[in-house]
Amino acid sequence: MNIGVLGAGQLGRMLALAGYPLGNRFTFLDTTGSPSAGVGEVIVDPDNQHLAEFLAKVDVVTYEFEHLPVTLVQEIEKHKPVYPSSRAIEVCQNRVEEKALFDRLNIPTPAYRVVESAEQLEAAARELGCPVVAKSVTEGYDGKGQAVLKAPEEAAAAWQSIGHAQLVVEAFVDFVREVSMIAVRGRDGEVVFYPMAENQHVDGILRYSVAPLPDLDVQMQQTADTYIRTLLDELDYVGVLALELFQTRDGSLLANEMAPRVHNSGHWTMDGAVTSQFENHLRAVQGLPLGSTQAIAPTCMVNVIGREGDNAAMLALANTHLHRYDKAERAGRKLAHVNVVAATHTELLEKVRACQALLPDAPPVEWSFTNTL
Amino acid sequence: MNIGVLGAGQLGRMLALAGYPLGNRFTFLDTTGSPSAGVGEVIVDPDNQHLAEFLAKVDVVTYEFEHLPVTLVQEIEKHKPVYPSSRAIEVCQNRVEEKALFDRLNIPTPAYRVVESAEQLEAAARELGCPVVAKSVTEGYDGKGQAVLKAPEEAAAAWQSIGHAQLVVEAFVDFVREVSMIAVRGRDGEVVFYPMAENQHVDGILRYSVAPLPDLDVQMQQTADTYIRTLLDELDYVGVLALELFQTRDGSLLANEMAPRVHNSGHWTMDGAVTSQFENHLRAVQGLPLGSTQAIAPTCMVNVIGREGDNAAMLALANTHLHRYDKAERAGRKLAHVNVVAATHTELLEKVRACQALLPDAPPVEWSFTNTL
Repeated sequence: MNIGVLGAGQLGRMLALAGYPLGNRFTFLDTTGSPSAGVGEVIVDPDNQHLAEFLAKVDVVTYEFEHLPVTLVQEIEKHKPVYPSSRAIEVCQNRVEEKALFDRLNIPTPAYRVVESAEQLEAAARELGCPVVAKSVTEGYDGKGQAVLKAPEEAAAAWQSIGHAQLVVEAFVDFVREVSMIAVRGRDGEVVFYPMAENQHVDGILRYSVAPLPDLDVQMQQTADTYIRTLLDELDYVGVLALELFQTRDGSLLANEMAPRVHNSGHWTMDGAVTSQFENHLRAVQGLPLGSTQAIAPTCMVNVIGREGDNAAMLALANTHLHRYDKAERAGRKLAHVNVVAATHTELLEKVRACQALLPDAPPVEWSFTNTL
Repeated sequence: MNIGVLGAGQLGRMLALAGYPLGNRFTFLDTTGSPSAGVGEVIVDPDNQHLAEFLAKVDVVTYEFEHLPVTLVQEIEKHKPVYPSSRAIEVCQNRVEEKALFDRLNIPTPAYRVVESAEQLEAAARELGCPVVAKSVTEGYDGKGQAVLKAPEEAAAAWQSIGHAQLVVEAFVDFVREVSMIAVRGRDGEVVFYPMAENQHVDGILRYSVAPLPDLDVQMQQTADTYIRTLLDELDYVGVLALELFQTRDGSLLANEMAPRVHNSGHWTMDGAVTSQFENHLRAVQGLPLGSTQAIAPTCMVNVIGREGDNAAMLALANTHLHRYDKAERAGRKLAHVNVVAATHTELLEKVRACQALLPDAPPVEWSFTNTL
């Protein structure tokens, strides 16, 4: 089966690496003009001239990036099956639609307002109580198009800096940790869930994801499972869905946002789970049985951002797995990740700290459960 | 680093899939005219016209197939580092040299004779006692160029059917099992060893490899480690070396043959060990630290030969990993393998039997230790 992928970055690359063993071939449609997948056949098509060529090659289409024109995806759907569907893209690329869906499905979220002017932003900031986070409704990615307001008076400056006609304003959440759920739904409706991961972001960019969590109670995992299953079923979803949540001090989970694709916070599954998120996404989109999502051992994903570290020294640490994306160094760019696996969380922490020391500019790892180890 | 690979079959394919995450790129030189790697850049060069082009692209050269002209490899060595060296190829593609090396290094082998006529073959069969196995000195691969003589009188027919000017004749060994060692030597001389695997061949073709072995005593593993380390050091070897041995009833190990490359009996490491043989081979050839060879759990590699099985049903078995080579079906052809992983050997056996039932023509699995489970 030839899998068509919209987008040709590192997520597409890792999908292909997981799919070759299943016998798949890959054709990427790159609309940016700067593909980096480095495997498979890449059709560079920034002006949307080669869609017919792409469609002629592929049996089924998926994507590594949800900020695509919905009309493009709808057009593709007329010719080939697309998983997840354009409906998932439509919802996930629009924060207002996404919040409305969470509300409709009774999935709790932080308090929020939708605003369409600096004045409304200021009013929302007063109502919700500062600090608040203002986010553009569309095209947000990795902390871009966002601003934190420490006081309502900062509304005008924030409005201008974001530069969008519609924003979602969210109350700050007093969270214990940021977590994420990765789940997979097959074409037959079967759903499997990975153990929840704890994520550490710095300046809006993911730096560390660790799973499974030693202090997670079963009920909280089940609550998260229920939330994401509701979303999957509602969207008649096929493939991997990622859902980021806040775990609050009172023990509840608030949905932050979701992504209709394989997700950076699921990269730990490549070495830490029986079946990786990439393989399970591909199994789902081609109608194969889903693989076990069981964790093998405590695993931490360490992102390599901007500059590469001492790769040889990291590989010298036992059970440390390097995943480079074959991209040139550039500030803020995701270049690689390292999956560190250990027998215990205590040993894991030591090894992650050793990795961190080998990576330029990597922030200290801070797990919510460090003091319980 | 761009890795040049001589040969473009499934072993090269799996090397590439292991090397992309390390940031490698791959250029294959295919001398057969029918490459099947399906990844990387393939230079099809049956008439040896494109060597300069290949050399211009690559930083270091390795190979997936040892039956290459030694002169070609020596020519390449003048321009780029080749690991393992042409010396390893020279030894491994010639059974007489190989046996002589085993003898010189005091690595025990089955009793053998070198013969150069049907008459000498008959005499050797009498001396060694039938049955004996006669093998062509060069170009043997997967049971081709071999004959079993049940009586000395079969010498003339065997000589004719093999059709080579020089044969090695080996006494049959009353073995408990066939095992293999996979070891890796780095550019700095560091050596790591995988746990020994038990192999089941049918008609000279490998069907199952299982590791680690529940009934293997530490001393036997250490003996095998010593044998292969002696070979690695003697050849100043870099990369993965595979050594097939017989375990006899009296508990000794006799070396059968070796292969200077990643090996089918090491495919279990892709899902059953911390670092796969493919990744460790690539780490070695580019001078990176070697990865842990520790087994994660009992694992059995099941070869898919000639015809594919019910892949969807196999993927429905938990912790079963499919590795397809993207090749068309053909009698006797290796098309894929399945790695089955389980918590215990008993569970593993059940799952392997379930796999076998889903594969056309797969022989019943027979492990030497089945009755101890």
